Amino acid sequence: MTDKNRAWILKSRPQGMVTPDNFELKELPIVPPNEGEFLIRTIWLSVDPYMRGRMNERRSYIDPVPLNGVMCGSGVGVVVDSKNTEYPVGSYVCGEFGWQEFVHSNGKGMRRVDPAVAPLSTALGLLGMPGRTAYFGLLDIGQPQTGQTVVVSGAAGAVGAVVGQIAKIYGCRVVGIAGSDEKTNYLTQELGFDAAWNYKTEPDYDAKLKETCPTGIDIYFDNVGGPVTDAVFHRINRKARICICGQIAQYNSGKVELGERFLWKLIETRSRVEGFLVFDYAAKYPDADRQLVNWFHEGKLKFRENISRGLESTPAAFLGLFSGENIGKQLVQVSDEPPK
Amino acid sequence: MTDKNRAWILKSRPQGMVTPDNFELKELPIVPPNEGEFLIRTIWLSVDPYMRGRMNERRSYIDPVPLNGVMCGSGVGVVVDSKNTEYPVGSYVCGEFGWQEFVHSNGKGMRRVDPAVAPLSTALGLLGMPGRTAYFGLLDIGQPQTGQTVVVSGAAGAVGAVVGQIAKIYGCRVVGIAGSDEKTNYLTQELGFDAAWNYKTEPDYDAKLKETCPTGIDIYFDNVGGPVTDAVFHRINRKARICICGQIAQYNSGKVELGERFLWKLIETRSRVEGFLVFDYAAKYPDADRQLVNWFHEGKLKFRENISRGLESTPAAFLGLFSGENIGKQLVQVSDEPPK
Repeated sequence: MTDKNRAWILKSRPQGMVTPDNFELKELPIVPPNEGEFLIRTIWLSVDPYMRGRMNERRSYIDPVPLNGVMCGSGVGVVVDSKNTEYPVGSYVCGEFGWQEFVHSNGKGMRRVDPAVAPLSTALGLLGMPGRTAYFGLLDIGQPQTGQTVVVSGAAGAVGAVVGQIAKIYGCRVVGIAGSDEKTNYLTQELGFDAAWNYKTEPDYDAKLKETCPTGIDIYFDNVGGPVTDAVFHRINRKARICICGQIAQYNSGKVELGERFLWKLIETRSRVEGFLVFDYAAKYPDADRQLVNWFHEGKLKFRENISRGLESTPAAFLGLFSGENIGKQLVQVSDEPPK
Repeated sequence: MTDKNRAWILKSRPQGMVTPDNFELKELPIVPPNEGEFLIRTIWLSVDPYMRGRMNERRSYIDPVPLNGVMCGSGVGVVVDSKNTEYPVGSYVCGEFGWQEFVHSNGKGMRRVDPAVAPLSTALGLLGMPGRTAYFGLLDIGQPQTGQTVVVSGAAGAVGAVVGQIAKIYGCRVVGIAGSDEKTNYLTQELGFDAAWNYKTEPDYDAKLKETCPTGIDIYFDNVGGPVTDAVFHRINRKARICICGQIAQYNSGKVELGERFLWKLIETRSRVEGFLVFDYAAKYPDADRQLVNWFHEGKLKFRENISRGLESTPAAFLGLFSGENIGKQLVQVSDEPPK
C-alpha cells in the first residue's frame, strides 16, 4: 500500500466563473490510524453544484472551504486500515471525503454502505444526497397531488431526474426542462416524463410551457433559476408551490443579476415559493432512504451516471456541471471497486 | 329625496399610470326597490390599491370592471328605502357599493354594521377588509413569535398600520418603512413601532435595515415591492416568512419590471415567500372580526383616516394612494352620517 495521498486543494477563490486554476493537486502524507480511527481508500467522488458556494469567502449556510484546504465533497470508499471496530477493513463507507485518494476518519459524519442493496455509487446519487433532496423538496414543499402538473428545471441532473420520477409515482403530469436533446429524450423515453424540452434551443419558453402544461403549473422544482424560472412564473396555477432547490444559472455570475419581478404573480395566484436544504431533514433521512430503496427495487426509480476517471479529472468533472455536460449523476471514479 | 344618482364610471383603461381621465362622473336614474330589495345612501367610500388591478382588461383573481361600468369599491351607508326586512330603513350597511351616491341592493354581499361597536367608517378600515388582510396575512403566513423582527413596507397605510400593531401585540420588534417623515413619526410615536424609516429620503436601504433590524428580519410584510423589497431580502434570517400582500410600486408600471434575483437567498436561509388574498379567508372572517374589535376596545389597535369630501373627489383620493398621500385609511365621505 502507498504511503502517499493526493488531494485537490482550493488554491484561490473564483471571481465569477470557476476555473481549473482555482485548484491544485498536492501530495500529502498518509498518517496511520490511531485508536478509534480508520483509513479509507476513495472509490467514488461526487461533484455537485452546491460546492461552488463553498468556494466563496462569504459564509453561506455553511462555512467556506479554507484556502489551501482540501476541496469538499462526498465520497464512497473502502476501509483499508482500521482501529475502529464499527468500520473494519473491507467495509464500505460513505461520507464527507474531500477530493482526495485516501481519507483519515474517526467515523464522524460517516455511514456504512451495504453493496448488496444497490451499486455503491448510488450512495452519492439516487440513494444519497441528491435522492434525498428530490424526496424532501418535492414531497414536503411541493406536496404533489394526483393529476397536478410538475415542472422540473435541470431535469436530467442528479436531483431533477429523481424529482420527475417521484412525481410520476404520485400520479402527476411531469414536464422536464434540460439543456440538450439527448437529455430531453432521456427524460421522456427512459424516465417516463410526459414531456421535456431543451431550453438552449427553444426560442419561446412561454409558448412551450403553454403547450406542455395545458392546465398550467401546480409545482415547479427549480434547480436552475434565471430566464427559465421567469417563464414558469407566468404559468403557475392558483396555490402553486415553487420549490427552490438550486440556482445553478447564478452560481458563477459573481454579481447581482436582474430578472423579472414576479411577486405580484404570487398574490394573484396565492402561491408559495420556498427554499430548502436537505440537511434540515436529517432526522427524517431513514424514512427517505427506506422509500427510495423500495422504489428502486420495484423498478420505479432509474438512474444514469456520468463517470470521469481518476482523481486528476475531478476539477474538469466539476466544471462540467456548469456547462451542462452530465446526464444524471456526475461522479469521479478514483479507484476500482474491489472484486465481489 | 332626490331621484338622481351620480356615479363614477370607468371610461377607459389606463396604460401605465392611472389618470383622472380614466373616470367619468355620470348621472344615473334611481330605481325604487322591488320586493326583497333596498336602497342605500352612501356615506363612506373606500379607495384601495387593489382597485388598480381591476381597471386592467386582463382577468386577475377577479373579473375586471367593465368599461362604462360603475367603478368598484366598498362602502358604508344607511338604508333609505327598503322592501327587505333584514335591511330596514335606517339600518347601516357595508358591502360592495361602487363609486356612487346611491346603491340598489338585494342584500347579496352586504352586511349590517352596528354603529355602537365602533365608528361606521372603521368597517372599511381597521375592522374591515384592510384589518382582516393584516390579521390573516401576518398571523397565518407570517406566524409571528415573541422576540422576532417584523418589517412592514407601506407601513402607514390602512393594512400596514394594523400589521405593525398586531405584531407588537405578539411581542415582536416592529420596523416600518413608509414614504414621509410625518408617516414614520406617526408609526413610532402613535402606533408603538420600534423603528421606522423613510424610503424616499434614506440613501442606503441596506445600512438602514442593518441598523433598525440588528438581529435580522424574521417576517417581512410587503405592501410595496420594488427596491425596498430587494433590500429586505438581503437581511432575512433563517426560516424567514415573506408575506406578499401588495406590490403597489408595480401596479401602474404597465411593463415588465426588472429587479434583483433573490431566489438563491431563499435557499441559503430556507425561507418562504407567499402571496395571499384576504378573500380566501372568508370562512374565518368572524374570528378576525371578533379579535380585531376586542383589541380595538382594549386600546391596542389605533387607526387614522385620511378623508376627502364629496363623491367628486373619489378619483383624486384613489390616485393619491399611488403617490403616498394618505396616512392610514383613505376614505371618501360622500354624505353625512345621520345624527345619533
